[in-house]
Amino acid sequence: MPITSHDVARLAGVSQPTVSRALRGDHRVSEATRVRVREAADALGYVPSEAGRSLATRSTHCVGVVVTDLANPFYPHLIGPLHDTLEQHGYRMMLFAERSEAALETERLLDRSIDGVVLTTAVIGSALPAELARRGLPFVFLNRETGGGDADAAVVDNEAGGRLVAEELLRLGHSDIALIGGPGDTTTGRDREHGFRISLSEAGVGLPRRWVRQGPFDYGTGYEGLLALMSDGPRPTAVFCGNDVIAIGAINAARRLGLDIPGDLTVIGFDDLPMAAWETFDLTTVRHDLDGMAKAAAELLVERLSGNAEPPRRTVFAPSLVSRGTHAPR
Amino acid sequence: MPITSHDVARLAGVSQPTVSRALRGDHRVSEATRVRVREAADALGYVPSEAGRSLATRSTHCVGVVVTDLANPFYPHLIGPLHDTLEQHGYRMMLFAERSEAALETERLLDRSIDGVVLTTAVIGSALPAELARRGLPFVFLNRETGGGDADAAVVDNEAGGRLVAEELLRLGHSDIALIGGPGDTTTGRDREHGFRISLSEAGVGLPRRWVRQGPFDYGTGYEGLLALMSDGPRPTAVFCGNDVIAIGAINAARRLGLDIPGDLTVIGFDDLPMAAWETFDLTTVRHDLDGMAKAAAELLVERLSGNAEPPRRTVFAPSLVSRGTHAPR
Repeated sequence: MPITSHDVARLAGVSQPTVSRALRGDHRVSEATRVRVREAADALGYVPSEAGRSLATRSTHCVGVVVTDLANPFYPHLIGPLHDTLEQHGYRMMLFAERSEAALETERLLDRSIDGVVLTTAVIGSALPAELARRGLPFVFLNRETGGGDADAAVVDNEAGGRLVAEELLRLGHSDIALIGGPGDTTTGRDREHGFRISLSEAGVGLPRRWVRQGPFDYGTGYEGLLALMSDGPRPTAVFCGNDVIAIGAINAARRLGLDIPGDLTVIGFDDLPMAAWETFDLTTVRHDLDGMAKAAAELLVERLSGNAEPPRRTVFAPSLVSRGTHAPR
Repeated sequence: MPITSHDVARLAGVSQPTVSRALRGDHRVSEATRVRVREAADALGYVPSEAGRSLATRSTHCVGVVVTDLANPFYPHLIGPLHDTLEQHGYRMMLFAERSEAALETERLLDRSIDGVVLTTAVIGSALPAELARRGLPFVFLNRETGGGDADAAVVDNEAGGRLVAEELLRLGHSDIALIGGPGDTTTGRDREHGFRISLSEAGVGLPRRWVRQGPFDYGTGYEGLLALMSDGPRPTAVFCGNDVIAIGAINAARRLGLDIPGDLTVIGFDDLPMAAWETFDLTTVRHDLDGMAKAAAELLVERLSGNAEPPRRTVFAPSLVSRGTHAPR
């Protein structure tokens, strides 16, 4: 039979409400009584029920994190620092995976088992954030947002990142340039392409439709995308990949085709995941503070949950180019 | 102001307890009333509180999953199928990361915010599982166990896997053989080494101390381990790595040293993660049903939570060797 606060009260010689107050650290209870209750609870192995505490305080001390494909090497780099930052603030982390946003039942987020949500899978114009706002569940965008700019968000300046890659390719003398980008309905996919295309265009270099491939931010998109780009007709001499995972797919496809990187083809990624630095890839890519971005999202949400009624804040991280071994002059 | 079950009761013209029963699907409530309550709840956008339901049923419908380093490419392959299988059974997933088992406060698992736990980080002889058993919190071991064999577990036959690798190396004529293994206090680390060593030993081939390196199941262990093995003295012609992540670290270190794989060195891993099949690695490795193992662990736990009082069950998955491009005759 489980130990209850009544057992603790009996052993400590106090009332049951005093046990609850003492274990909550309520200052109406004297230090001496708190110590006695704490000792009684330890002796009996009593742990207060989070569900009971939750009903009492209307807070679950739990934050939901919505992610998509968990096997994608990108997500663990967000989940780790999110978990640790939330834990430092006394919050647990509940994981909600979705195959597509339509598949996530909003009700699962709204049954009051969580205090707030970190959204990492938002697509442009998606209905979920508005529904959360209407129902009063605080949330923060991480990495992707819906494009409205009216909620807390921790993101990268994706357009600036796309520009950096274009400028590097132009500097290297490339003009036959391809893009294997992320989904057009994500701010990360759209804005990276946008910045990239503008900078090329300003230099009078086109980005023809036959050299643009799009798909999920995953290995298969890079792998299949590169095979398709190289299958017939004139070949590009450089390809900008929407993220590192796509770039790694493209590099593997290039290996299958016997292409030399960067001799035959320059490949540039985005994110600077740890594996981008591995000798086998040595990937030139756009770095941003992935860890810092995840921490910032957790902190924006925690501040929001602590009752801060300030207007929404966007924390925008600046990207920079990391030169490694996959780029070369035309 | 949040919608409560009293609002739903008023709209549906029933009592508040009837609303609770109807939304729980209690068969004492007629089908017609259940439909009327459901419609009223939908019209008001009412979602029952999980905390209230939890106090009523003494179940949280939430399972904790304890993992270590989230950025390790191994864990996402467990977390994804775990999440999906738990969700199919109506359970949410709460993630607990720990740096070391000592750092995980047992209390965080025991405050009744979860119904059970999946342990993926057990070390041999660790105290946590015994403490969970004593306190009545159901758990299942996934991938690693404590070695006692007295709890539900979904694991690989690690010793058989180690034997498979030794037999392949012997068949290829290797006798200068090294091991970069996982921690000796994990069943995965210990049993893979054990099977490997026994098979070599039975064939009269040694595994000298200078050619054995151990560390966490991560990239750095493989990378630093291979640099150390090759730094001075006679060099092995083959190395068995305790998992694929270690093997990938070793392959990258070999690239740094200018070694040809498999010309100069045979490298074999364990797990057959998706990245083992990438052209850049083309890793010969030991395959087991990673996805099936994670699903089996979730199902063992769900059955245990459903009140099945059977004795503990171990589901053991058989490994097989996948021949790719990183092995060659001596």
